[in-house]
Amino acid sequence: MNHSAIDCHTHVVPENFPAYAGVHASVPWPSMAPAHACHRHVIIAGKNYRTVSDGSWSVPRRIEGMGGMRVGRQALSPMPELLSYWLPADDAQVLLRYINDTIASMVAAAPERFTGLGAVPLQDMDMALRELEYLRHTLGFAGVEIATHVNGVSIGDARFEPFFAAAERLGAAIFVHALRPVGQDRIVGPLSEQAVAFPGDIGLCAAAIITGGIAARHARLRIAFSHGGGALSMMLPRLKHAWSMTPKALENMPEAPDIYARRFFYDCVVFDPKLVHLLIESYGASQIVIGSDYPYAMGEADPLGLLERCGLDAPTLQAITQTNAKRFLGIEQDVASAA
Amino acid sequence: MNHSAIDCHTHVVPENFPAYAGVHASVPWPSMAPAHACHRHVIIAGKNYRTVSDGSWSVPRRIEGMGGMRVGRQALSPMPELLSYWLPADDAQVLLRYINDTIASMVAAAPERFTGLGAVPLQDMDMALRELEYLRHTLGFAGVEIATHVNGVSIGDARFEPFFAAAERLGAAIFVHALRPVGQDRIVGPLSEQAVAFPGDIGLCAAAIITGGIAARHARLRIAFSHGGGALSMMLPRLKHAWSMTPKALENMPEAPDIYARRFFYDCVVFDPKLVHLLIESYGASQIVIGSDYPYAMGEADPLGLLERCGLDAPTLQAITQTNAKRFLGIEQDVASAA
Repeated sequence: MNHSAIDCHTHVVPENFPAYAGVHASVPWPSMAPAHACHRHVIIAGKNYRTVSDGSWSVPRRIEGMGGMRVGRQALSPMPELLSYWLPADDAQVLLRYINDTIASMVAAAPERFTGLGAVPLQDMDMALRELEYLRHTLGFAGVEIATHVNGVSIGDARFEPFFAAAERLGAAIFVHALRPVGQDRIVGPLSEQAVAFPGDIGLCAAAIITGGIAARHARLRIAFSHGGGALSMMLPRLKHAWSMTPKALENMPEAPDIYARRFFYDCVVFDPKLVHLLIESYGASQIVIGSDYPYAMGEADPLGLLERCGLDAPTLQAITQTNAKRFLGIEQDVASAA
Repeated sequence: MNHSAIDCHTHVVPENFPAYAGVHASVPWPSMAPAHACHRHVIIAGKNYRTVSDGSWSVPRRIEGMGGMRVGRQALSPMPELLSYWLPADDAQVLLRYINDTIASMVAAAPERFTGLGAVPLQDMDMALRELEYLRHTLGFAGVEIATHVNGVSIGDARFEPFFAAAERLGAAIFVHALRPVGQDRIVGPLSEQAVAFPGDIGLCAAAIITGGIAARHARLRIAFSHGGGALSMMLPRLKHAWSMTPKALENMPEAPDIYARRFFYDCVVFDPKLVHLLIESYGASQIVIGSDYPYAMGEADPLGLLERCGLDAPTLQAITQTNAKRFLGIEQDVASAA
């Protein structure tokens, strides 16, 4: 095996953050603190948000991990909690620029192994559009990671139209990731919001991008959803049924919802071969990409193994492991073999 | 075909409600108002909540509809918005008693065609337990319909433990239905909350009943989830993965989450054969029952047709159309043929 698989869902945390240098009071600016061997704590607002391993920032450690996973290239995106939509916009801009530049330095250290997906401060559209231009034109990133919502407003809301228009114009790939999910307050017991509520959150968001009309109005957008699009697979036939009975729905959806859904990409962080098959049936084999959620515990440690257990034919496997991701990320050149 | 299929997901609205006779101010007590032929408006707080057809209350019209759907028996449950958890408890008790008695009169008019699932005022546990006894002992109902949450508190929360304990003791079937769903504020565009947000809502609720430990502590409960359990199918392998890495999870889940999920029942209001197959694969053919959401537009007008398009073998079809529902509802006798 030549390790040419492309993993579209992996995360970065910088080894350090600069000290806060803004003008606002009580900003939950992150910092890093030592932890056990090869790990550091991400401290936010005085609490340990998460303890992360050095794969989060170390290029050699990351490449070592990729070898074990038989992955040749990773798309690098920030740990979602770092997207910082809740910070004052000027602070978020400084923080995200630092994170984007950190990702750029990782890509520069091994450009044949990494592709950048940056972050933009969507709480301020002008700043977000400027940062998106920076990502594309200065850093040469494939695109951007965004969350399902900005401070409770669905990313499918019309106020984010300028962002999607700019991403389409700039050819920026958009990776949509669940974050501070809807339904957090309905979790009972010890499992995390990431475990329980991410699938509903990302599904609702994908639905909103369809039902709100962004999908129809920006047909050339390349959008991928985390966690296999979560609940969307279970919702889509229901959405189509509702669409067929709602004449007003034609304004936002001239075509049926599943037509738009089949233009999106979906990772396969779904932990079960039958769900990979459902993704293929729901969206087409051309729309599914590898995701691992590297380097986190709630990730799929062996995404190739998951696919191997699906009994897919060679062309489908080739599409899911490589071709689709190249299309999503806009990677034209061949991915270097890491064999 | 002898029309012996049992439809576990159908709703009732009374033709009229009594006038409000309580002592509280500004209670959103429902009333009915004339609409176009064969329809009436459900008026709540001065607004038309929904215009419903006479199948909602008329036994002959309902039986006519069942004939067209090749359904021999329906489980009758209230239109979920009538569950009234947000009313003062004494008012809710009066209203739900009226609705329960209305359903009882429909069952009495055609006991070979209808099975009752009533409602209890879960905002007051003592009242709820008394009404549950009334449903089982006085009305002879199979059980009860409940919502996914009571005023924002997941039904999987420990405060509802006495309800589940009583249902288990009384042998009451529990039909859990999405209502005022989580994520309503993330819907963009013209489709309804029922269309877009119900699948995430019911999935999160099913997860909570597992992760909170109610499923483990009440192994003899018979619980069915509306809308195929919504997002649960997409979440379950992720929950299992999280469970396997969370030692503390063993307190509420001594066994893996999917073990509990396979004890629940799920209707097949999912609008797509591939999703019916997913339900069967996820939970077992013994746990799937027919649902139509009769008489609503967001329902499955031809549940038998959906199953026929699934290419199921005869034993599986028999299980899903009849045997499983009898087990869920606790119906021992044969269902009369309506051929």
